[in-house]
Amino acid sequence: MTRHQVLRQALREGRLLTAMAAHNPMAAVLAEQAGFDAIWGSGFELSASYAVPDASILSLSVHVEMMRAIAARVSVPVIADIDTGFGNAVNVAYVLPQFEAAGVSAVVMEDKHFPKDTSLREQGRQELLAIETFQGKIAAAVAARRDPDLVVVARVEALIAGLGQAEAQRRARAYVQAGADAVLIHSKQKTPDEILDFVQAWDGSAPLVLVPTAYPQLRESDIAALKKVGIVIYGNHAIRAAVGAMREVFARIRADGGIAGVDAQLPAVNDIIALQGDAGMRELEQRFLR
Amino acid sequence: MTRHQVLRQALREGRLLTAMAAHNPMAAVLAEQAGFDAIWGSGFELSASYAVPDASILSLSVHVEMMRAIAARVSVPVIADIDTGFGNAVNVAYVLPQFEAAGVSAVVMEDKHFPKDTSLREQGRQELLAIETFQGKIAAAVAARRDPDLVVVARVEALIAGLGQAEAQRRARAYVQAGADAVLIHSKQKTPDEILDFVQAWDGSAPLVLVPTAYPQLRESDIAALKKVGIVIYGNHAIRAAVGAMREVFARIRADGGIAGVDAQLPAVNDIIALQGDAGMRELEQRFLR
Amino acid sequence: MTRHQVLRQALREGRLLTAMAAHNPMAAVLAEQAGFDAIWGSGFELSASYAVPDASILSLSVHVEMMRAIAARVSVPVIADIDTGFGNAVNVAYVLPQFEAAGVSAVVMEDKHFPKDTSLREQGRQELLAIETFQGKIAAAVAARRDPDLVVVARVEALIAGLGQAEAQRRARAYVQAGADAVLIHSKQKTPDEILDFVQAWDGSAPLVLVPTAYPQLRESDIAALKKVGIVIYGNHAIRAAVGAMREVFARIRADGGIAGVDAQLPAVNDIIALQGDAGMRELEQRFLR
Amino acid sequence: MTRHQVLRQALREGRLLTAMAAHNPMAAVLAEQAGFDAIWGSGFELSASYAVPDASILSLSVHVEMMRAIAARVSVPVIADIDTGFGNAVNVAYVLPQFEAAGVSAVVMEDKHFPKDTSLREQGRQELLAIETFQGKIAAAVAARRDPDLVVVARVEALIAGLGQAEAQRRARAYVQAGADAVLIHSKQKTPDEILDFVQAWDGSAPLVLVPTAYPQLRESDIAALKKVGIVIYGNHAIRAAVGAMREVFARIRADGGIAGVDAQLPAVNDIIALQGDAGMRELEQRFLR
Repeated sequence: MTRHQVLRQALREGRLLTAMAAHNPMAAVLAEQAGFDAIWGSGFELSASYAVPDASILSLSVHVEMMRAIAARVSVPVIADIDTGFGNAVNVAYVLPQFEAAGVSAVVMEDKHFPKDTSLREQGRQELLAIETFQGKIAAAVAARRDPDLVVVARVEALIAGLGQAEAQRRARAYVQAGADAVLIHSKQKTPDEILDFVQAWDGSAPLVLVPTAYPQLRESDIAALKKVGIVIYGNHAIRAAVGAMREVFARIRADGGIAGVDAQLPAVNDIIALQGDAGMRELEQRFLR
Repeated sequence: MTRHQVLRQALREGRLLTAMAAHNPMAAVLAEQAGFDAIWGSGFELSASYAVPDASILSLSVHVEMMRAIAARVSVPVIADIDTGFGNAVNVAYVLPQFEAAGVSAVVMEDKHFPKDTSLREQGRQELLAIETFQGKIAAAVAARRDPDLVVVARVEALIAGLGQAEAQRRARAYVQAGADAVLIHSKQKTPDEILDFVQAWDGSAPLVLVPTAYPQLRESDIAALKKVGIVIYGNHAIRAAVGAMREVFARIRADGGIAGVDAQLPAVNDIIALQGDAGMRELEQRFLR
Repeated sequence: MTRHQVLRQALREGRLLTAMAAHNPMAAVLAEQAGFDAIWGSGFELSASYAVPDASILSLSVHVEMMRAIAARVSVPVIADIDTGFGNAVNVAYVLPQFEAAGVSAVVMEDKHFPKDTSLREQGRQELLAIETFQGKIAAAVAARRDPDLVVVARVEALIAGLGQAEAQRRARAYVQAGADAVLIHSKQKTPDEILDFVQAWDGSAPLVLVPTAYPQLRESDIAALKKVGIVIYGNHAIRAAVGAMREVFARIRADGGIAGVDAQLPAVNDIIALQGDAGMRELEQRFLR
Repeated sequence: MTRHQVLRQALREGRLLTAMAAHNPMAAVLAEQAGFDAIWGSGFELSASYAVPDASILSLSVHVEMMRAIAARVSVPVIADIDTGFGNAVNVAYVLPQFEAAGVSAVVMEDKHFPKDTSLREQGRQELLAIETFQGKIAAAVAARRDPDLVVVARVEALIAGLGQAEAQRRARAYVQAGADAVLIHSKQKTPDEILDFVQAWDGSAPLVLVPTAYPQLRESDIAALKKVGIVIYGNHAIRAAVGAMREVFARIRADGGIAGVDAQLPAVNDIIALQGDAGMRELEQRFLR
């Protein structure tokens, strides 16, 4: 089975998959080692790692290249966040094969205007496309994939934009009709009520995807019990962990005037070297360097 | 003063500068905020973030692009690790203008063969170039820079390669004669003795650069007291901090079956958004979006 | 004088500059050798060389990298075609420094929606932004440049879109008020009448730029006599020449079943090697390879 | 059949394939339309299009990206020129999957040192690796491919380096033993005698590849009659045609002071637009833009 098929089969069987955000291959390797089922190629994390807003600032090439680098270093499926698809339906038709060639097993496209604004900010520009316009983009993505096992996920931003449950349901259904394999329903409310309402009302025509950043109290066992959710995405915990640790270590080094105090608490250099695939490289040396 | 001049003047005045490794712009932003004087564009960290060995695996383009992205997001000088210069002296002549155009204020080039092996591994291939060959590469770098304030640092790997103090001194002097503005002397011994011996014997014809990864007990105040060292580089503490934290957070999420347990201990999403330059972007919106 | 200043001064003095399109550094080198005053970093040519439509398909990175490669190989000013600025005014603010760092001396931005359609096609989607929206984008570009000598050109597509002379004049004036240093006025009519009418009515508040693709009969002497035009751009003649010749040579080789027939009519391999800068490289070898 | 299999089967059946060099997707599209069986992703042409020497100056990323762009626009097999493999056998192991993911059906690797010098220059640095060293690189490439149909070609530079027929044969056999699927034997003599001698003496353990740049009088029918040659590569005729035509057209425009004189002799803009895939894009618009 290809990893596209692993992902697709899990969605079909209704088994809940867990996906961890990664902003570079090292984060992805660690997520795979920790036991996550998939990697979330998060646009938010990627933008954050480049220290620019998550607002269509980074180019398509930067996104595609990072997905490629990640997919080359892990064996679990990679779910690419393609934001708004980098333009209109025509752009989507040109963009999707690039992500597919990068080795991702799924793409998630959201129904906002390009350039987008991040969903997580308290007051952002949350402008949605007309439903039929986004249906065209989903249909373009579906038609553009070469491997029919590649999963196309439609991301509904209607709750984020404050348009209410009815609009969210209407959009989700319309996107499934247009060919979406799954629906990511996003909310920034501090409790899961809004999301739970959506899930309960959902007709089950396609599996759902949740991103419980704003409502962390919702656990995997709760989500699995809903029966309708195929993937839970942890959308920004890699970069948040990395930022927190770097900030703390940097401050400590400045306070100490040296690294003696932090050295022992950090992973050893040899630990990093091992994560870089040193053993594999030494095997290559043994076999092929003459 | 340009940031090249800030760096050069500090070297001239004998003020010890501290440089923190960064593998992406976010790490660099955090290092600048913490108060480091410069960013070390570490090849080891960059390779580690891509989960490949630090052995000339990543392409020149990946190195240059990351330096450019970093230099665009911080205002302190960026010191680029250009490894072996990506080939011979001719390559160096073509490569250096690319790093310069990327906005770096200094380049550090080491006297090993291309493809290199990482210096930090216990048993690596530590093959040095003939002295005059590396002199040619230093001279090529010096001749290729357009801004005379760009700092060219020669990295001496003789101690790493086990060739002894005399050879290290010989090489360091030869590289200064060839035009190097500073000398990075590297050691992987667990105590600073070897490095202290080198510094003591050094003729002072150019400032030294130290990377106390293996001998963390050497503090900045100790180094400043030596009088001969211009820059101390902390070569891998950003990626080590990030890896340690991501590994721990990922494990905790898997153990908990959810993010409720880790959420509070992580930087808030809004904290990350602020680091991405959200305030600047909102000002752009106010001024220019109509 | 920097090449930005060369360009700016010529615009100020009213001397007509000629710019030839280039889709890669070789085309640019040949254009400089032929005596053109500047290189037009044409989005149409770049898209054509990648065999994709000129409709915002290629990523920002591909555009920026090609401008960088071109600017590194010629000494005349490079005028970058940045299409619609790759998004809204916020995108422009992030994009412009990237083109500036790539070494271009001018950017030309057009008042169409992203994603754009090519202006030269008979029936394309020619949707213009509201005037004040595009003024915001021009103002964002002007504010984002670091070197005040970088030239920002506003491209008016009102005639292309069939909106008439009054609208074209209104837009041109508004863009100059917003900070544009020059105005590119585009037409796809088969005779120069429409353009000549525009030039005659122009208030001269900024120099004009013409692209006589559709009306080739307008010669440089005619344009210079108008007094109001600073640059004439030949927007697609490099790729058209290259395509015509490759097609002919390829067909001949297939017809002949070999290269004997075409060899003598082609530039010699040594001729190409010289254009690649072989002499400079051999000098580098002499000086630095030891 | 995949295009890898098309290529491999032709090699097995002893049918002579013709490959035309391309330095960008447009050249490749024209070559496919002209009837060539394959595209030669020429390092010489790519370097020339960037106006830099063919001497390991362009980065791995530039090579890989252009192969990817070409393979995405044509349906015939793409044969990538990977020069020396960008380092040693370990580098080859990391590099090959990148070219494979870019969609190429074959790679050609030469037995020179990195950084290489171009083979076509009269007096270049033609330093060959030890046979067993290059065998290691071939073995590394073979082991690194994921699709066993990907063709690995060993390029023998012994004749170019003036080492004689016996050494050329010895190397060719050794490389086939190490796993090469075919052998490219290169010569820069002005007549085909040297090559014909090599072919005659060849044991036929693998098909040969010829590049008759220096001896254009050798026709495809002559080569096919030799029975041992699988592919004839025309290694630089796309860039030579393009350079010749651009130079002539540019000179004419400067001489004329305008484009009226060249316009009619060039392909029409609509002709270029068609080659960019305009029809396909308009069909996308019809189907998906709403």
